[in-house]
Amino acid sequence: MTISYAHMLQFSTSFLNGKLSFTHHNTGRRTRLLTFASLERPDKNIAIDPKVDSLLDSVKWDDKGLAVAIAQNVDTGAILMQGFANREAVFTTLSSQKATFFSRSRSSLWTKGETSNNFINIHDVFLDCDRDSIIYLGKPDGPTCHTGAETCYYTSIFDSLKQQEVEGNRLALTSLYSLESTIAQRKAELAEEENGKPSWTKRLLLNDKLLCSKIREEANELCQTLENNEDKSRTASEMADVLYHAMVLLAVKDVKVEDVLQVLRQRFSQSGIEEKKSRVSKKSK
Amino acid sequence: MTISYAHMLQFSTSFLNGKLSFTHHNTGRRTRLLTFASLERPDKNIAIDPKVDSLLDSVKWDDKGLAVAIAQNVDTGAILMQGFANREAVFTTLSSQKATFFSRSRSSLWTKGETSNNFINIHDVFLDCDRDSIIYLGKPDGPTCHTGAETCYYTSIFDSLKQQEVEGNRLALTSLYSLESTIAQRKAELAEEENGKPSWTKRLLLNDKLLCSKIREEANELCQTLENNEDKSRTASEMADVLYHAMVLLAVKDVKVEDVLQVLRQRFSQSGIEEKKSRVSKKSK
Repeated sequence: MTISYAHMLQFSTSFLNGKLSFTHHNTGRRTRLLTFASLERPDKNIAIDPKVDSLLDSVKWDDKGLAVAIAQNVDTGAILMQGFANREAVFTTLSSQKATFFSRSRSSLWTKGETSNNFINIHDVFLDCDRDSIIYLGKPDGPTCHTGAETCYYTSIFDSLKQQEVEGNRLALTSLYSLESTIAQRKAELAEEENGKPSWTKRLLLNDKLLCSKIREEANELCQTLENNEDKSRTASEMADVLYHAMVLLAVKDVKVEDVLQVLRQRFSQSGIEEKKSRVSKKSK
Repeated sequence: MTISYAHMLQFSTSFLNGKLSFTHHNTGRRTRLLTFASLERPDKNIAIDPKVDSLLDSVKWDDKGLAVAIAQNVDTGAILMQGFANREAVFTTLSSQKATFFSRSRSSLWTKGETSNNFINIHDVFLDCDRDSIIYLGKPDGPTCHTGAETCYYTSIFDSLKQQEVEGNRLALTSLYSLESTIAQRKAELAEEENGKPSWTKRLLLNDKLLCSKIREEANELCQTLENNEDKSRTASEMADVLYHAMVLLAVKDVKVEDVLQVLRQRFSQSGIEEKKSRVSKKSK
């Protein structure tokens, strides 16, 4: 089934009031430039850009017209969920800036969040080298899984194999978030009547003075690796110390690493368009 | 096609000399516990655990006996590649601790790295809530994509839409690595004859004394948000400052954030088994 661009427009407008706006810039080559409307103030002007068509043509849709679509948290890197997308689903994702999939069981488009309101707000969309697999890089409004879990991947095969009974779900966490989760666990243990085993993290969590003196000390040692021309492994090790101790402080203050990364993204303008703006600014970082 | 566990053992041993070792612990319930051999010293003792069979039975294989398998970098969270896995592929991944897929075009198992030597060394395997999608969480030995790119996702649809010609490939990077890449770009610009626009990052890159004084200052300000009971948004903002300035130092020293996260993972023992060990230790962090 081939779907024309006009059809897709109908789809996107009927589903989500497509928010793709085209700004007509007459460049030397008189080519249109595309500006993505902000999520807060959707622009309903939809124009036709031949690039979108040819781009969607370049995707290697399978015999059912589908490609794998993986939604990933732009700040943490967590894989939120995986579904399938057809041509309209990708178009709708681009136009609405909300991750949209094709439900194989219901044979219809669905936008993650249309029921739960936990949309995944798109920052970019990537194709793989074979052009048959797609990443929806976005920021989730809330938990992505229908179970209420942050992501759909909370069943560790390693846990299932090595334990009699798995005590609880464990999200697929990468190193930074695994450490954050360990620190949070130590904090939770402190709140229990029996504090569990003593640990350095617990000592830091209970002693602001010690924690702050360690953070200052580790930051100083990180600087010394540069000042004293120490080797790279020392720098990596001291930076690990800075990160760990600073993350304990974040835990004390109930701040998530994700919040910090969001601040960084907003400052440094992750999206290409914003990046370009920041390049224009003379005061750009 | 149903494949028995005995068949799978043949598969895994014939393909990769499966390295799954089973340690027989007689617990109260006389159940076997599974210990994953270290990658450096593969243990060729393969025993049969009924759990593996029932676990693989629980996966919702599609009508072709496949499930989506996504390989993710355990340290950075980067999605490395996506393929499909059948029962033997997952079994082989578990037993060899190397990400293994089923090639639909060649109708055969293939282990990422068997040609390039860039294996993806598995740290854990996760199933999603529907049990039809799998994450291979692992550490790549080198670039994953056959093109030599770090990951297979280097084609940004947003870039393609907004630019006449895309200047170069841009990996799908999450916030932290996007910032790292921006800092690396500034550093590269400094090496060029025309240094490009002035920027704060460039000033820091060129002035160790300024950089170190900023890192100490920002670490101090992060501590003050705790000491002076400032609000959470101040803490997130100061932590962002610490991270950014420390990352400029990493760039000066040619240290990757990934290296730092690897240090943290090795220290804090990301895998469940190691985590358990660390819990037993009294001096555990």
